[in-house]
Amino acid sequence: MVTRKEDFSKWYLQTIQQADLMDYSPVRGCMIFKPNGYEIWEHIQDYFNKRLKEEGVRNAYFPMLIPESFFTREKDHIEGFSPELPWVTEAAGEVLEERLALRPTSETMIGDAFSKWINSYRDLPYEINQWANVFRWEKRTLPFLRTSEFLWQEGHTAHANEEDARQRTMRMLGIYAELLEDLLAVPVFMGEKTPSERFAGAVQTFSVEAMMQDGKAVQAGTSHYMGTKFAEAFNIRYLNQDNEHVYAHTTSWGVSTRLIGSVIMTHSDDQGLVLPPAIAPQQVVFIPVGPKKKLAEVMSKVDELNEQLKAVGLRTYIDDSDNSAGYKFNEWELRGAALRIEVGPRDIENNQVIMKARDEDEKYAIAMDSLSEKVQQALEDMQKRLLQKARQRNQANMYTNIDTLDELVSHIESKKAANEVPGWVLIGWDGSEESEAKIKELTGFTTRNIPFNQYFEGEDALVKKETCIVTGKPAQETVWIARAY
Amino acid sequence: MVTRKEDFSKWYLQTIQQADLMDYSPVRGCMIFKPNGYEIWEHIQDYFNKRLKEEGVRNAYFPMLIPESFFTREKDHIEGFSPELPWVTEAAGEVLEERLALRPTSETMIGDAFSKWINSYRDLPYEINQWANVFRWEKRTLPFLRTSEFLWQEGHTAHANEEDARQRTMRMLGIYAELLEDLLAVPVFMGEKTPSERFAGAVQTFSVEAMMQDGKAVQAGTSHYMGTKFAEAFNIRYLNQDNEHVYAHTTSWGVSTRLIGSVIMTHSDDQGLVLPPAIAPQQVVFIPVGPKKKLAEVMSKVDELNEQLKAVGLRTYIDDSDNSAGYKFNEWELRGAALRIEVGPRDIENNQVIMKARDEDEKYAIAMDSLSEKVQQALEDMQKRLLQKARQRNQANMYTNIDTLDELVSHIESKKAANEVPGWVLIGWDGSEESEAKIKELTGFTTRNIPFNQYFEGEDALVKKETCIVTGKPAQETVWIARAY
Repeated sequence: MVTRKEDFSKWYLQTIQQADLMDYSPVRGCMIFKPNGYEIWEHIQDYFNKRLKEEGVRNAYFPMLIPESFFTREKDHIEGFSPELPWVTEAAGEVLEERLALRPTSETMIGDAFSKWINSYRDLPYEINQWANVFRWEKRTLPFLRTSEFLWQEGHTAHANEEDARQRTMRMLGIYAELLEDLLAVPVFMGEKTPSERFAGAVQTFSVEAMMQDGKAVQAGTSHYMGTKFAEAFNIRYLNQDNEHVYAHTTSWGVSTRLIGSVIMTHSDDQGLVLPPAIAPQQVVFIPVGPKKKLAEVMSKVDELNEQLKAVGLRTYIDDSDNSAGYKFNEWELRGAALRIEVGPRDIENNQVIMKARDEDEKYAIAMDSLSEKVQQALEDMQKRLLQKARQRNQANMYTNIDTLDELVSHIESKKAANEVPGWVLIGWDGSEESEAKIKELTGFTTRNIPFNQYFEGEDALVKKETCIVTGKPAQETVWIARAY
Repeated sequence: MVTRKEDFSKWYLQTIQQADLMDYSPVRGCMIFKPNGYEIWEHIQDYFNKRLKEEGVRNAYFPMLIPESFFTREKDHIEGFSPELPWVTEAAGEVLEERLALRPTSETMIGDAFSKWINSYRDLPYEINQWANVFRWEKRTLPFLRTSEFLWQEGHTAHANEEDARQRTMRMLGIYAELLEDLLAVPVFMGEKTPSERFAGAVQTFSVEAMMQDGKAVQAGTSHYMGTKFAEAFNIRYLNQDNEHVYAHTTSWGVSTRLIGSVIMTHSDDQGLVLPPAIAPQQVVFIPVGPKKKLAEVMSKVDELNEQLKAVGLRTYIDDSDNSAGYKFNEWELRGAALRIEVGPRDIENNQVIMKARDEDEKYAIAMDSLSEKVQQALEDMQKRLLQKARQRNQANMYTNIDTLDELVSHIESKKAANEVPGWVLIGWDGSEESEAKIKELTGFTTRNIPFNQYFEGEDALVKKETCIVTGKPAQETVWIARAY
């Protein structure tokens, strides 16, 4: 078993395989989501569908195949996506007249539909979401985090004016932040992407970014304000209250199965998978212990306790296999069961069980009475602990006092030499693409986002950097930079 | 508005468009599922996911793109599907070394995975399901019922022996029957498909078939016993308890978004969409009536009643638009709201509301007290009524006394002349493909399935036909034939 310190990449691949979350497929860059991995996605879907319902956004489904001519209508969009598209060129034995792309995202297909569906200001806002598979033919892939086919939700909305559209853009970003922090226990950095990192075709792109244990960043969710760019490309116009035909303002926003990778990389440890209880496929695993001849008695009690927990909606599993208790303990640490409950003959005599949370070292005895309430409390506590622990680690890995490229390079080198993570660095930036390119060339760091004022617990304001780390010119923006997945 | 009698096909297309369930897309045969249409699918997913959980079958997700070489491993499978496959031949600017098919079904991809995952009898049964988009490039398409891209679930299981695999095959068929009858209020005909209608690569295929109002059949769900055919093609072997490497027995089973088409064609009428309450996006629509100056008072009562219904989990909508009450009544009939509740000032004085079920002609006053219970009861009653009504119509359209091809032809002609539906005909069949071909050639009727003994309410046994309708030879099987979608 390789540790995180020894080789983080190898540790990640080992962790997801040993937890039985995925497998590789014969198609380059396309992975199999096994039940334990897919179930994490199902919990994300449940959470997000509830939020969408509260927002009045309904689900729909649009065709996966997009005619080539659609992409060319929005210049930036085709430039951004064409290098990654797979194409259907033949079907049912015939060569197609026009190539069909496997969707990398659906602004074009949905823009075309909106142009038919939206006619009057009464039709606005028009707000829909779809859960779908999408394709971006990646050169270097990594399970969950970067795959040629992945699953996501993509929301698309059209509004009467800029203000409404911007409100929806920011509202969804906020919901993504809550999804990450409340459900996945992954603390986020909210902010705006720099122009070079914008979604192809957006006026502005906002993101929630997350810091992994190796200090690298994951862009975990994005929300885009499109202005009238797609409305102009696809002729999404409506008759306003002054009887004029005007363009709608559109947004789109998405999170994908890369969230699964992010949550794993945030919480897991050298013993295997750690998942927040809210999404763990196994919230509680019962392990009967003690001599064989007492097993029937133990199992009868375990069944009774299990029913109590199931009755309050907990996801439980009884491991009554022939393996040794020690083997089972290890197995369920690898697989990320949130709580382990051991029950033996002596525990029954003492009216207690032995409980251990996946993220703690110690196990402890608790009285059997009102077990379901205690278990629910223990799961809630663990959920909070994981978020807190991730927050503390983020704090320790955020650097705000680096002012020049030399300092940045030596910071990274000294961290590397000490086998520590270089973390994220908050820099001043003159706003030029050249400066971004220079940073990337020298360090591999890229701009993550221009933060909103909301990160440093206990501090009111974000540090503002006055000069550009590259050119020394006055900074236009203060930006997080980091290596990224 | 065209009626069902005048032109059933036109009526269907008009009904789904006016209910805002779908739209066409620029890609041939690929449709857009609008929110009202997609929500029906979501209710089907919820129901089926609960059933899967009870069965211990877990969801997973497999890559959509399938290498050409996979298809060729099972001879019947490639023969059956190759005429309908779309192919990806280029990606990211390069021509692929091997073409990749857009999955029409996933036996091959999942068979390959099973061969890696299944090693010992301890691994069996291995039972998974996936919700996915699939592609079959159809020449003639019809929204929901036959589209080039559609959504479905496909279950795939591997078992230690034939008995276990057959049990799973039949159990899923039974669950499909319950899904159709309990959730969709569509009565089903369960039986076995003839060899010529089998799934490509199956040893036996079983189906649930449903009769539409025009007497045509929809194959609504299928469950396949594969024997060891796919296990042999993909080397799915396991070490049994005698330490021998033996082939697993596999099954697969699926239902698709064609269920949406079936439920619409079964229940809707000349006033528009009719949906069973269990899947209706709008179970209750409130329509405030009366003079404008009383509207505030009425709306306050409507809000109160609406909250009561929402509190018990009902899907409700308040139509407070500026349209006239008459316009709204018509609109919600078109859209298939299950119950309409009118509330006016006089109703409030009388402590009553006016309720109308979508499938009944009369509306009636009910006291406001315990409204949620009464509404729930009314919805349950409607759900039962729809199933019952469909059963009665089926009974009226089933013919069991037709013994020769001449009789069949004249039956169909006389029905046609009377503008009545020819329905389904139970025939004796000598078991030859030639006889099936002959029937199809002369009448357009195809074999639906060889029924299990379970259709005629009030009769113990199914009619058994002694001679083949085509050749007059002794019948091998008694088979339902009908025109089919």
